[in-house]
Amino acid sequence: MGWKLVGKALIGQSGGPTAVINQSLVGAIKEAKANKKAITGFLGARHGVHGILKEDFIDLYAQSAKTLNDVAITPSAALGSVRHKPSREECERIFHICQKNNVRYFFYIGGNDSAETAHLINEMGRDAGYELRLIHIPKTIDNDLRVTDHCPGFGSAAKFVAQAFMGDNLDNRSLAGVKINVVMGRHAGFLTAASVLGRKYKDDGPHLVYVPEVNFSLKSFLKDVEAVYAKLGRCIIAVSEGIHDSGTVMSKVFADKMAAEGGLHGEVDAHGNVQLSGSGFLGDCLSQAVTAHLTKKFNIKPRVRADTFGYLQRCYPGVVSEVDAKEAYEVGRAAVQFAISGDVDGSVVITRAKGSAYKVKCELAPLEKLAKHTKEMPRSYISRAGNNITQSFVNYALPLVGELPVVGRLEG
Amino acid sequence: MGWKLVGKALIGQSGGPTAVINQSLVGAIKEAKANKKAITGFLGARHGVHGILKEDFIDLYAQSAKTLNDVAITPSAALGSVRHKPSREECERIFHICQKNNVRYFFYIGGNDSAETAHLINEMGRDAGYELRLIHIPKTIDNDLRVTDHCPGFGSAAKFVAQAFMGDNLDNRSLAGVKINVVMGRHAGFLTAASVLGRKYKDDGPHLVYVPEVNFSLKSFLKDVEAVYAKLGRCIIAVSEGIHDSGTVMSKVFADKMAAEGGLHGEVDAHGNVQLSGSGFLGDCLSQAVTAHLTKKFNIKPRVRADTFGYLQRCYPGVVSEVDAKEAYEVGRAAVQFAISGDVDGSVVITRAKGSAYKVKCELAPLEKLAKHTKEMPRSYISRAGNNITQSFVNYALPLVGELPVVGRLEG
Repeated sequence: MGWKLVGKALIGQSGGPTAVINQSLVGAIKEAKANKKAITGFLGARHGVHGILKEDFIDLYAQSAKTLNDVAITPSAALGSVRHKPSREECERIFHICQKNNVRYFFYIGGNDSAETAHLINEMGRDAGYELRLIHIPKTIDNDLRVTDHCPGFGSAAKFVAQAFMGDNLDNRSLAGVKINVVMGRHAGFLTAASVLGRKYKDDGPHLVYVPEVNFSLKSFLKDVEAVYAKLGRCIIAVSEGIHDSGTVMSKVFADKMAAEGGLHGEVDAHGNVQLSGSGFLGDCLSQAVTAHLTKKFNIKPRVRADTFGYLQRCYPGVVSEVDAKEAYEVGRAAVQFAISGDVDGSVVITRAKGSAYKVKCELAPLEKLAKHTKEMPRSYISRAGNNITQSFVNYALPLVGELPVVGRLEG
Repeated sequence: MGWKLVGKALIGQSGGPTAVINQSLVGAIKEAKANKKAITGFLGARHGVHGILKEDFIDLYAQSAKTLNDVAITPSAALGSVRHKPSREECERIFHICQKNNVRYFFYIGGNDSAETAHLINEMGRDAGYELRLIHIPKTIDNDLRVTDHCPGFGSAAKFVAQAFMGDNLDNRSLAGVKINVVMGRHAGFLTAASVLGRKYKDDGPHLVYVPEVNFSLKSFLKDVEAVYAKLGRCIIAVSEGIHDSGTVMSKVFADKMAAEGGLHGEVDAHGNVQLSGSGFLGDCLSQAVTAHLTKKFNIKPRVRADTFGYLQRCYPGVVSEVDAKEAYEVGRAAVQFAISGDVDGSVVITRAKGSAYKVKCELAPLEKLAKHTKEMPRSYISRAGNNITQSFVNYALPLVGELPVVGRLEG
């Protein structure tokens, strides 16, 4: 095979890290190394676009096999990540840095923002008549990218969440009470829905699940909790950090209420968004509302607790889905294969074969199909009442997570 | 061997569950089954003393081998747990229920409160001239029981915490900021100290560790964080939920301050204690204090996040220390062996042989030596400045946790 395009490759990692994001990195490096006639060098940008703009690169071909193998199984972005979305002017500088370094292959591991950036730089290459092959490698624990059946990173985070609820369900069964767990997910409820994957017995929790796809009403929520508590004497609840009432996230609803009452309020970030992760605020507010409601209804003070899973769920070493790790590696490898075989741009997506056996392949989708917009859970994954998750979701998600730990109960 | 004492056994589980508490239960059941001439039946009390008082028992000899094997690897108390410490009058009723059911062997899996209860019931037996052998089987993630080198349950919780900090350190390295993680432990800092067990590289977090054994000063804390942040551009902090300033837990210090300012305040439980677990309150207060301090010092708004590990750390399935699971089983087995061989009462303790190779054996200690008082970390496990953990602790705790996941970094 004669390679038409010869030059260096450049790769970066962006956005919130995952437990398997380095599998994609190492998959790409190893595949490139096997094709050195086309890809003559491999630059790793430290902290994504920041590293590119500063030309702060690591030589990825210089890494030993042991290093690559260790890095592959290490959670979080080994190159460092970044949350900055480059401006048009910065994209131009990035493009010129590529030209200057004879970079002909550009790989970017990230979410949908990254797909957008990639799309922009790709257009600049076309306008300048400089061939730059640009492949987006998807990652996100939120599983909210379009086109792809699912995203690398989701399966492992889902496994962490599923096992956390299995443990919490057992804990709550032994010492009864109401337990609220807040799971990551601003707009999509996939990760929160994963809370149900370890349910085995009829009365296993979570008994109630609230996702951002359905409007959250505090009043209905309290009625739901009351009903489960009356029946089982306990209740485990999974809540997405992004639940909202008529478009206003609940964190802000509570913060505004507290501010109006003269108390403290939640943190607001640079974009004017309320900080959802890295704070126990939402869980604590829901917990107080449940305590007040049940105390009034049952005239006893119930044991109500809230945990916010926070950052643990996205980078926990030792709780990794084997399928997810393998697919993340394959997606990185496929990105290089697509680029070498002449694909000018695109995003690697995972396509699942129809039928009950789990079978996937990597394909390339146009960047613009993934950029800008994200995906929500289909309504069929959510129960009619909007407070639980259906078997359709379990069928979809369980193969991505793989086997969960065995648990048992005493008989009689 | 002719058995001197023939009768039924009774077992209960008490207090906060652990990931391996059922190993002890199954260890006891299997050992008793192998000695049916002495232990003719085995009653499991649902929810500890509550179940005994209601005579709500499960037939533990009727459990299939598969059930026992599944239950052994299932976190949390399979019999159900209880937080109730029985009164003297209730202890008398418990004793009479034992007499009525021909219970001659009484096993109680729990913390130091349980040792106290066991001690009391044992004395009643003596006074009544009814031979009742009473063995306490230790469990606690806090590792705060006296006499024993360590407690079953601690190793697995420590493994969860160590891995959580490994992941969080990687996450924080890829997206820099200040990260505060609140770990369980009201009086003893063992579990918080376990945060350091996965440190591998020189700049790995946690960079600061605060335990209840050392007085907490908010002012020194902020200075510590400032120094690490100035040096590394990031900082990971492990904090025990029970940190206190001159005897007042910090949760209460913050709650009182907020109340004085007209805001909300933390929950106070039945004993007048501030609720420490199941709330993100302490982490959020520390987070706000750090944000304000660093903003003032460096004139930029730093990225500060707090996670409270909460209940995840005590019953997480799939993150279990093999050593801990094995020892928990052995401790349950040993309890039955001691009882059968004529020991009238005591608490099973783990004794570690001196020397660098890890080697332990089970012994029996007098109940009164474990009852009432708990153990704190020796000062030698805490750095001189009181804000970090020493190698002595690592040497002590790592064998209990076992191997941690391999992680790597890119070269150069």
